[in-house]
Amino acid sequence: MERDRLIRTMESILGTEGVVHEREQLRSYECDGLMNYRVVPDLVVLPETAEHVQQIVRTCYEEGIPFVARGSGTGLSGGALPVQSGVLIVLSRMRKILEVDIPNQRIVVEPGVINIWVSQEVADEGYYYAPDPASQVVSSIGGNLAENSGGVHCLKYGFTTNHVMGAEVVLADGSVVHIGGGKAPDAPGYELLGAFVGSEGTLGIATKITLRLLRVPEAVRTLLAAFEDTEEAGGAVSGIIGGGIVPAAIEMMDALCIEAVETAVHPGFPEAGAILIVELDGPEAEVADQFDRVIKVCEENNASEIRIAEDDAERALFWKGRKAAFAAMGRIANDYYVQDSVVPRTELGNVLKRISELGEEYGMRVANVFHAGDGNLHPLVLYDNDNPGEAEQAEELAGEIVFACLDHGGSLTGEHGIGVDKKKYMPKMFTRRTPRPLPHAPHPEGRPGRELLRRPPWTPAPRTSPWKTCRR
Amino acid sequence: MERDRLIRTMESILGTEGVVHEREQLRSYECDGLMNYRVVPDLVVLPETAEHVQQIVRTCYEEGIPFVARGSGTGLSGGALPVQSGVLIVLSRMRKILEVDIPNQRIVVEPGVINIWVSQEVADEGYYYAPDPASQVVSSIGGNLAENSGGVHCLKYGFTTNHVMGAEVVLADGSVVHIGGGKAPDAPGYELLGAFVGSEGTLGIATKITLRLLRVPEAVRTLLAAFEDTEEAGGAVSGIIGGGIVPAAIEMMDALCIEAVETAVHPGFPEAGAILIVELDGPEAEVADQFDRVIKVCEENNASEIRIAEDDAERALFWKGRKAAFAAMGRIANDYYVQDSVVPRTELGNVLKRISELGEEYGMRVANVFHAGDGNLHPLVLYDNDNPGEAEQAEELAGEIVFACLDHGGSLTGEHGIGVDKKKYMPKMFTRRTPRPLPHAPHPEGRPGRELLRRPPWTPAPRTSPWKTCRR
Repeated sequence: MERDRLIRTMESILGTEGVVHEREQLRSYECDGLMNYRVVPDLVVLPETAEHVQQIVRTCYEEGIPFVARGSGTGLSGGALPVQSGVLIVLSRMRKILEVDIPNQRIVVEPGVINIWVSQEVADEGYYYAPDPASQVVSSIGGNLAENSGGVHCLKYGFTTNHVMGAEVVLADGSVVHIGGGKAPDAPGYELLGAFVGSEGTLGIATKITLRLLRVPEAVRTLLAAFEDTEEAGGAVSGIIGGGIVPAAIEMMDALCIEAVETAVHPGFPEAGAILIVELDGPEAEVADQFDRVIKVCEENNASEIRIAEDDAERALFWKGRKAAFAAMGRIANDYYVQDSVVPRTELGNVLKRISELGEEYGMRVANVFHAGDGNLHPLVLYDNDNPGEAEQAEELAGEIVFACLDHGGSLTGEHGIGVDKKKYMPKMFTRRTPRPLPHAPHPEGRPGRELLRRPPWTPAPRTSPWKTCRR
Repeated sequence: MERDRLIRTMESILGTEGVVHEREQLRSYECDGLMNYRVVPDLVVLPETAEHVQQIVRTCYEEGIPFVARGSGTGLSGGALPVQSGVLIVLSRMRKILEVDIPNQRIVVEPGVINIWVSQEVADEGYYYAPDPASQVVSSIGGNLAENSGGVHCLKYGFTTNHVMGAEVVLADGSVVHIGGGKAPDAPGYELLGAFVGSEGTLGIATKITLRLLRVPEAVRTLLAAFEDTEEAGGAVSGIIGGGIVPAAIEMMDALCIEAVETAVHPGFPEAGAILIVELDGPEAEVADQFDRVIKVCEENNASEIRIAEDDAERALFWKGRKAAFAAMGRIANDYYVQDSVVPRTELGNVLKRISELGEEYGMRVANVFHAGDGNLHPLVLYDNDNPGEAEQAEELAGEIVFACLDHGGSLTGEHGIGVDKKKYMPKMFTRRTPRPLPHAPHPEGRPGRELLRRPPWTPAPRTSPWKTCRR
């Protein structure tokens, strides 16, 4: 199909306002949050309904035209990068909240709905939507689904995949399927939501999404603790988790990151080698008790200062500093490259040390800000694109950091997705049929497998089990 | 392949002790916990290793011989019923605990390992395996996987699917795949564990399973509350959950069930129309606070008596009564038929009323014992097989109960699986392409979907997102 006819076909489906075909306008869509990859799409279409999506996809399928779907385009892994000579399906006009069902703790939304709107919609009833990527004021639920987005509170509440109950999906041939029960308690066939959420658009386009709502916790308490270095801060993280406490969030920032944040948004953070922000939520009594224990663990790990947020304003200030961290890098460097590897929490100290060594080897600065409780690192390699070769060097160093994480039993992505960014590292991680075991096997505290001594001699199962009486 | 040659082939793989072919011995395997369906298998094989399973399956595949896998045979839905002229692969000899990794909270086991052994294996380190079907002292982890088994504590901790991190699986053609990361943090390809767990043996045979271990909670408190009827007990359940408390377990028993249990194991339960057993666990401070709130809710719902377990012995007595409930039916009836439907918790009262009406219509007794917090019913239809036609009538009544549950937005199975038992009801539940919505839409407390008033006018996504700085 020639381009002009394709434009006319799409306009007959969407009207002229739903089709972007002028070169200058198309450039708005050439990349997502990962800006070092850019492809101008041949055509951008803006469906308003699931039927629109279906007709667009069916047309592309029949004509053999490649297509990519995207939401707000805030992804950091290039998952929404257009494909050469292809159609980009932008879902930002599908922004309806279709149903709110408080008694069943469900909400049904279209894919273009912004993450934070979900929580805002049900805040008056005392509910919220748990996954909270830093991009939550701009990123869309559809994009969150595609990337299985995380956020600072995912340590306690899980990722997007733990909160999606169902989806209406347009497949590559334009057919529509329903995955998961959604508002219904069950669906026929196998449970495929786990495979769909986080599949980065490779399986279909969600046009209707049912999410689970949680009760807003009774109490929230937040503290900020300063340490001499990331090792001592890491010790506190281990102490908290090892003590059986699951905080809503534990975030760590290193000295370079603190410096950038201080310059950018002046949260008044203490001067320190590392800062932890620890937030607890839950029933009042639980939070009060565990908060005291967290303070004690921080003290035991030589915290030089502990600040407790006394009200919402102070709490907001702590989080303002944390959430501005990526953007704040602009104050101390012209450019940066962000990684998203994840390592077993027990390996955090070793990996941070290796990152620091790598930075020295390359003579480049690396700032660290990350979800410490999950072991989900976000090393930011700082560089200046004006210096020839530095961009390439930064990407190489970032690659070395990825390899270091893999060597310590980590994985390529914690929450940003593989996308075009990390595709090249996939063969490094997955080279064999069997999954790579964690590196510390046998772990000093673990023990090798063995046959159970108390294993009873094998006998056939009894004919009458106590779990169901039969004729007596 | 004729039977004699098949026996010789299997014996060459497993040795003579691994093959059962004598008619009388084969009868031991003719059914699982659902004893009204019986099929004598042609041959029973007892592999000891994953390689054995692979060779058995490959032989069956090449010769076109049907096969079914089974663990301890305690399932209640006939999921392990042998297939006519087929091979039954019994996994009870694969009972090794292969690896314990406390720092990463993982354990790797073979499928024949008994559920309770997992918790026993790591008890000294202060860990346990959460899913606890009533059959946990005899049912195997492999069978738990196949049926996605639940248990009294699954309200708070989730079902088997939430605790399986990986599996080595022999597919129908004898090839071996690894699903999920297992001890590794990630696996290549799509997340297929969600589809595998609960697939009732239709996708493959797990030969190695990695489970997640949880920390034993700091405190546990249990109470028993008596009510005039199930409606008031149901009111207390709603009050507890609606108050934002998630107990480790809330179990309900009705008068008929209490009578049977009292006759069978004499736990000294109060005479009442309904009993609730509520258990809280977690940090000491949280449990103490919430326990007081649970007592208050029970009082507000006119509990005639509240007993608090003062020590482990009293707590064990409460649970002894609950766990003996199925077997105790033998004291008040010759036979019974158990259902496993699940309904939205908000519909519990209506469904119980309907079950009682149906019992009266049929002139038959129905005892109720169930996981109230999950809405997971276990109605027990009592009958006497010596009275001609009663068994058929019981099954018909049980079917009517299923339909009543479906009418109230329920599903066919909460934790026992579909198996051969509920296959016949599948077309009743799944008749259309779209999932059936819950019945109360629009719910009185819910509200219909609408377009967000605060929806900003649509604009293309900005080229520079704040989440990643680019050149400034």
